Amino acid sequence: MTRVVAQGTFDILHPGHVHYLQDAADMGDELHVIVARSVNVTHKQPPVVPDEQRREMVGALKPVDEAHLGHPEDIFVPIERIEPDIIALGYDQHHDDEQLEAALSARGLDCDICRASPLEAEAADRLLSTGRIIDRIVDERS
Amino acid sequence: MTRVVAQGTFDILHPGHVHYLQDAADMGDELHVIVARSVNVTHKQPPVVPDEQRREMVGALKPVDEAHLGHPEDIFVPIERIEPDIIALGYDQHHDDEQLEAALSARGLDCDICRASPLEAEAADRLLSTGRIIDRIVDERS
Repeated sequence: MTRVVAQGTFDILHPGHVHYLQDAADMGDELHVIVARSVNVTHKQPPVVPDEQRREMVGALKPVDEAHLGHPEDIFVPIERIEPDIIALGYDQHHDDEQLEAALSARGLDCDICRASPLEAEAADRLLSTGRIIDRIVDERS
Repeated sequence: MTRVVAQGTFDILHPGHVHYLQDAADMGDELHVIVARSVNVTHKQPPVVPDEQRREMVGALKPVDEAHLGHPEDIFVPIERIEPDIIALGYDQHHDDEQLEAALSARGLDCDICRASPLEAEAADRLLSTGRIIDRIVDERS
C-alpha cells in the first residue's frame, strides 16, 4: 500500500488542481491532501474561500481519499501523522526538492519526493489558475 | 438500475453543489449531470468559467458518473439520450414541477421529478453560492 500526500491552497477549484491530484493519486494507492490554512498562505494573496470549505471541496474530488487542513505552526505535523511513502509536488510549486528532502530526513521522515506533470491546456479559453478565475471575475463583475 | 439526472450551471463549485449532487446520486445508481451552456443561462449573469471547463469540473466530483453539456436549443435532447428514471431538481431551482412533468410527458419521457434537500450551513462563514464567492472576490480584490 503506497500512500501519497499532495498539498496546496486549492482556493477556487479548476482543472489544473484535478490534474495534479489525479497525477498524485496515480503514484500510489491512497491519496491524502493537505490543504493550507489561510494564516499560512504568505507567498500570495490569502484565499477567498474559508479553510474548512476548501478542505471539504478537495475531499469531494474523485482522486482524493482524504483531505486534511495543515498545521498552523509546523508543516511536518500532518506528514508525521499520515506517514506517506511519497510526497507529490505540483509541477509549479516553489519548493527546493533537495532542501525539502533534507528537512524531512532531519525529522526522521523517510519518503520520496515526486513532481506532478503540467496539464496540457488544449483549449485557449481554459482558466487554469485560481488567479485567472479571480481576474476574470474582477474584470467582468466589478 | 435507476438512472438520475441533475442539472445546473455549476460556475464556481461550492459545497451546495456537492450536496445537491450527492443527494441526487443517492436517489439512484448512476448520476448524469447536464451542465447548462453559457448561451442558455438567461435568468442570471452568464457564468465566468467556460462551458467545457464547468463540465470537466462537475465530472471530477465523486457523486457524478457522467457530466454532459446541455443542448443549445432544446433542453430535452440530452434527457432523451440519457433516458433517466428520475430528474433531481435542486431545492432552490425555479422550475414548476408539474409544468416540467407535463412537458416531459408531451415528449414521451416518463420519469419522476424529485427535489434535493437544502444543505444545512453549519458554519457562518461558508460561501454556499457562486454569487457569494464572486461578491467576496469583487469586495476583496477589485
